Amino acid sequence: MHVGPVTIDYDILVAGLRGDTGFTSQEFIDAMSFSLKYLRKLMGADETYQPFIIPGGGTSAMESVASVLRRGDKVLVVSNGVFGDRWKAIFNRYSVAVDVLKANPGEYVKPEEVEKAVEEEKYSLVTMTHVETSTGVKEPIGEVTKRIRDKVDLIAVDGVSSVGAETVKAKDNQVDIYLTASQKAIGVPPGAGLLVLSERAVSRLSEESVAGYYLNLKNWVDVMRNLEEGKGSYFATLPVHLIFMLVKAFELMEREGLENRIKRHERVAKGIRAGIESMGLDIVARKPEAYSNTVTGVIVKKANPSEVLKAVVSEGLELAPGVHPALAGKYFRIGHMGWVNPNDAVTTIAVLERVLKRMGEPINLGEGVRAVQNTLA
Amino acid sequence: MHVGPVTIDYDILVAGLRGDTGFTSQEFIDAMSFSLKYLRKLMGADETYQPFIIPGGGTSAMESVASVLRRGDKVLVVSNGVFGDRWKAIFNRYSVAVDVLKANPGEYVKPEEVEKAVEEEKYSLVTMTHVETSTGVKEPIGEVTKRIRDKVDLIAVDGVSSVGAETVKAKDNQVDIYLTASQKAIGVPPGAGLLVLSERAVSRLSEESVAGYYLNLKNWVDVMRNLEEGKGSYFATLPVHLIFMLVKAFELMEREGLENRIKRHERVAKGIRAGIESMGLDIVARKPEAYSNTVTGVIVKKANPSEVLKAVVSEGLELAPGVHPALAGKYFRIGHMGWVNPNDAVTTIAVLERVLKRMGEPINLGEGVRAVQNTLA
Amino acid sequence: MHVGPVTIDYDILVAGLRGDTGFTSQEFIDAMSFSLKYLRKLMGADETYQPFIIPGGGTSAMESVASVLRRGDKVLVVSNGVFGDRWKAIFNRYSVAVDVLKANPGEYVKPEEVEKAVEEEKYSLVTMTHVETSTGVKEPIGEVTKRIRDKVDLIAVDGVSSVGAETVKAKDNQVDIYLTASQKAIGVPPGAGLLVLSERAVSRLSEESVAGYYLNLKNWVDVMRNLEEGKGSYFATLPVHLIFMLVKAFELMEREGLENRIKRHERVAKGIRAGIESMGLDIVARKPEAYSNTVTGVIVKKANPSEVLKAVVSEGLELAPGVHPALAGKYFRIGHMGWVNPNDAVTTIAVLERVLKRMGEPINLGEGVRAVQNTLA
Amino acid sequence: MHVGPVTIDYDILVAGLRGDTGFTSQEFIDAMSFSLKYLRKLMGADETYQPFIIPGGGTSAMESVASVLRRGDKVLVVSNGVFGDRWKAIFNRYSVAVDVLKANPGEYVKPEEVEKAVEEEKYSLVTMTHVETSTGVKEPIGEVTKRIRDKVDLIAVDGVSSVGAETVKAKDNQVDIYLTASQKAIGVPPGAGLLVLSERAVSRLSEESVAGYYLNLKNWVDVMRNLEEGKGSYFATLPVHLIFMLVKAFELMEREGLENRIKRHERVAKGIRAGIESMGLDIVARKPEAYSNTVTGVIVKKANPSEVLKAVVSEGLELAPGVHPALAGKYFRIGHMGWVNPNDAVTTIAVLERVLKRMGEPINLGEGVRAVQNTLA
Repeated sequence: MHVGPVTIDYDILVAGLRGDTGFTSQEFIDAMSFSLKYLRKLMGADETYQPFIIPGGGTSAMESVASVLRRGDKVLVVSNGVFGDRWKAIFNRYSVAVDVLKANPGEYVKPEEVEKAVEEEKYSLVTMTHVETSTGVKEPIGEVTKRIRDKVDLIAVDGVSSVGAETVKAKDNQVDIYLTASQKAIGVPPGAGLLVLSERAVSRLSEESVAGYYLNLKNWVDVMRNLEEGKGSYFATLPVHLIFMLVKAFELMEREGLENRIKRHERVAKGIRAGIESMGLDIVARKPEAYSNTVTGVIVKKANPSEVLKAVVSEGLELAPGVHPALAGKYFRIGHMGWVNPNDAVTTIAVLERVLKRMGEPINLGEGVRAVQNTLA
Repeated sequence: MHVGPVTIDYDILVAGLRGDTGFTSQEFIDAMSFSLKYLRKLMGADETYQPFIIPGGGTSAMESVASVLRRGDKVLVVSNGVFGDRWKAIFNRYSVAVDVLKANPGEYVKPEEVEKAVEEEKYSLVTMTHVETSTGVKEPIGEVTKRIRDKVDLIAVDGVSSVGAETVKAKDNQVDIYLTASQKAIGVPPGAGLLVLSERAVSRLSEESVAGYYLNLKNWVDVMRNLEEGKGSYFATLPVHLIFMLVKAFELMEREGLENRIKRHERVAKGIRAGIESMGLDIVARKPEAYSNTVTGVIVKKANPSEVLKAVVSEGLELAPGVHPALAGKYFRIGHMGWVNPNDAVTTIAVLERVLKRMGEPINLGEGVRAVQNTLA
Repeated sequence: MHVGPVTIDYDILVAGLRGDTGFTSQEFIDAMSFSLKYLRKLMGADETYQPFIIPGGGTSAMESVASVLRRGDKVLVVSNGVFGDRWKAIFNRYSVAVDVLKANPGEYVKPEEVEKAVEEEKYSLVTMTHVETSTGVKEPIGEVTKRIRDKVDLIAVDGVSSVGAETVKAKDNQVDIYLTASQKAIGVPPGAGLLVLSERAVSRLSEESVAGYYLNLKNWVDVMRNLEEGKGSYFATLPVHLIFMLVKAFELMEREGLENRIKRHERVAKGIRAGIESMGLDIVARKPEAYSNTVTGVIVKKANPSEVLKAVVSEGLELAPGVHPALAGKYFRIGHMGWVNPNDAVTTIAVLERVLKRMGEPINLGEGVRAVQNTLA
Repeated sequence: MHVGPVTIDYDILVAGLRGDTGFTSQEFIDAMSFSLKYLRKLMGADETYQPFIIPGGGTSAMESVASVLRRGDKVLVVSNGVFGDRWKAIFNRYSVAVDVLKANPGEYVKPEEVEKAVEEEKYSLVTMTHVETSTGVKEPIGEVTKRIRDKVDLIAVDGVSSVGAETVKAKDNQVDIYLTASQKAIGVPPGAGLLVLSERAVSRLSEESVAGYYLNLKNWVDVMRNLEEGKGSYFATLPVHLIFMLVKAFELMEREGLENRIKRHERVAKGIRAGIESMGLDIVARKPEAYSNTVTGVIVKKANPSEVLKAVVSEGLELAPGVHPALAGKYFRIGHMGWVNPNDAVTTIAVLERVLKRMGEPINLGEGVRAVQNTLA
């Protein structure tokens, strides 16, 4: 129950056991073609969007967004925590201007605040974080884009902790760039960033962009088009073995159905929150509308979060540390994405009950798991 | 017999079958610690060098060298082909000046030419390519550094097609940055760039560098130090599963012995060249001192190289296309690195004999393999 | 939570990924040597016992016991259920006389009953079943052997559902033949029977035995001795890949410690029984002293056991059908052996609570898991 | 290039990576159903034949043939070597009479000799060995059955080293029992015996047979019928994980086509024999009509065969020892079955050339591989 790499199904891992598959092999080309096509579906995009699968992960995918910026462009960063702030840290390395709208920990920047900001200033790009991994807070992407779509040039959304577990509608919400990483709700090892770009975003790729070389989408766009069409193509070496795992993950997704997959995540998340609350602990996300399907921050009262993380490992559970500086030392995170199921919700709460009780939290053993059971019945 | 990803030993691939290992787990931290330490040994570096293992591959590792450059720095690129030229393409995206010394295809830039260039101009950085993957040509790194060491600030060497198969002496040759990628002579899937930096190079990492964010080694240096010391640390998600494979590859290397490993590569390379020459074909590298242990370019006479690549696949052999523009349509490449052995040399030549004869090359069936056998006896 | 093949750790499964290991390879010989030596330890045997690892499973290991019998021998079978009765079915195929002592379902044959039987008749062999897989009932082996040891020739114990999860003392209890199968509490795929034979039992192996060929231990004894000494040896092909998995399982056992392993099984079994009882359901084994660490039979009231088995599969849980004819249609079995842990106890009861409630059992949701939690606290 | 377990394709091995699949799971039942049906096709049998897949291997499958015999039956064993003699050793353990027709090493019993024998005596069963693994000699099954079919009750053929690599026609040749093992030309790890029985053979299964329990096909026949029809069924635990590998192997066979598969084996065998002969060495099988597609015995002149076996291992090649007592110390065996391809023929001969020359054989380096190349051109 980590936030990433998440627990991975062995059927996916073994799909990468390819001893001698080069990047020019037809099997690899076919695997990329399938993955690129499926990525559109996963992102709620259509044929007008260009999919990209590039080496790296979430941060490199975010930095590749610089490919659409030119010297002097203005960017508005809508930040709900550590990974929202990361957009700013990235753009600060380039010759662009960055403004930031910042939410209190556990809250999200309100759609009307974003609207106000884009009315006061003309931005080339607005970035948002669908689910902020540091707090588990979800931004209402659709409500924001409805208000700002006509007032900004490009909109980019970091879907690292949402794609594959939350409803994602690149096209309907008119998002220009939606991105994620392989090791989160897709449930594959780390090693790739995945993006879709609208036609408008693709048209911004040019020699004049501020981007560097490896993460410059201009260098990758023809490779992606060729591979999707079944033709070998090379710019830099792609993570060949990971792509075969991605194909397997996408096949499992398709078999489950994307809607069923999202409902499964909802069910597990609901169970976990019910268990946490019935133990008398606080959730970092302050209001139900900010809850996400993928990450739950848990504020402890008496226990030391880093001691909790160590103790649960010996009970067969892996959790993630809290990383939001404003809540340092006060919380830990439960990741519930990828191949999680209701049994994981039960187990997670059962282990936490026992461990937290031992650490002095006023737990009534059995109350947490009962609450989970009630949500699952 | 591809140039990369190369054929990978299954013991290495299965080392990555880790269903639930997060980046905060002790197993992962230990794996990174071991790998970083071993990387120094592999590079012929000592404790004064800082090792890095970062997501991506060869090109991203090359781009991360921008971390030591500042606005206005002058760089000399010593290029023997496509991947030499890539250094220039990378630095052109940054505010630095780039001069290039270029060799004819199949040749390498002579040490005295490099010496002359650095005497005429003061360079912050000179880059070289140990083995040029596009042609299989090896640059005599030690001879160059002897001549230029005192006349330039920093020296960086792309060891993508050499590290693990050729003698690499970062320390003895006073190279400041030696880099490679996981999927070449190390014999692991693609997904990581590996570098060592001298103290001088590390001292250049700063807020003022021209580098971006993800590939900026300043953002990674503390993470690498912490992980080597066995402490969890995070900047961006590392390719967790790949690192476990890297550990296995390094363990196998250690069991074989680095010198034995290089001799094995030499033996296979010699066998392959003997086979090629006895078939009456030309090798792209023009002189024996330019031969490498890892890549052999083969110039065909009557056959169409891309047809050869297709035909050998149905005989169970995978080769790589020629990519040097000056030799377009005239050659293909044999990669012989990683876990290759003398039997691979025999098989490769045997398949080529049969396929090339069918395609009209004047082959005397059996002469190629006999030549291989004679080198192996 | 099946009774076998049980859920298997992937580290064990991947240990069998050996593409080209023949039965004459040193790796295989070493793997057999290690496994045979470790088998003695696992069985509580000493150097005077001869270990055997032969193809097949529990039933073939039982039949191989015919290797110590001669025409006209008398055998006493102590049967607590289906697999006790199997001893009789086997011996009936040979020219020996068989008497059976039979317990009521859920009970075991009392030590004093066995004592009485062996006082009335002279038996060459008495067979017992340590844990009867069909009911989960444990026979008190030590108490029986204490009473009968001096009155019978040979004692054989079927430890199929006990070895690796219950205290097994071949030597201390003076058992002549202790046997098990790979796919039960050892936690390896099915494919091998494992036995230890006392010197007395080995001395009975002869041309005159009633046994056939493949399962005749006389044909295997020299092979086992040679392999243990590191020498290649052949009678019939051993399950090479499985042996590498067995080595891994034994290494994991050694790392855990055999006593810790038994305690872990006890803890899980106790948790499961607490959950079952707090749901108001009956356990097949009628008294606590008959409880086993490995199998729990559960008698349902309103639900149809075969419907329960189907329903839990869709909740990610696999259980085993009841097979005792006297309880046909009344119960199902929970296997809790191999690599089970307390989280499995929680999950099993949580799924059962939800499924059984849906099927009309008078379950108070949360009571079962609370009971498990209390035993684990 | 071992005679078994042979080198196994990793796609087959990884198909066995099933962590939690019990014998009652639908996946396993489906896997058995598919495998049983495919086995008929592989054996050249039709719907009138009953397929069996039982634990063990070749020897246990041979012993299971006792299921069709009754006390006092007469059996004729047609033996071309060690595994022919094994039929006699097996039947000697049962109350049946056994006559043996024996060929000189390297030869096979002539069809007319068998005909003569069955005319002189009435036999309930005649057994033959399609390819004798100890010598690589092939018996002309069709020619024998044509002559004897009407004169004997049942005919059983050991196809251990033929099924999957030689033309097998159970139906057309009116063979009643054709058997093989998983680890030979099928190319799966050891662990299962596979048989088809004609209606006549099935009708002989009865309580009165001389067979024991585990290898008594009467105990398995309903299980096989149920599993083929998709219904769970149990007698003793089947090698669940191996069955998933078998499915994969059968799928790969189907993709290749059985005829193509046999041609591939022929091509490799021919290449190997050409290499051996051009090195001036003798083949154990004395005449071309006795050559098999799967095993070649090689008689050396100066080298010590057991030293050869050790030496080739360090060159990456695994061969098998000679086991025919009449040729003790004079030969070794090359297995060429399963997933072998022409490159294996080249490699095998190349390694042998180098190793045997070193050991004093009068080898002209390169002649062997040239001969292989000529057969492959």
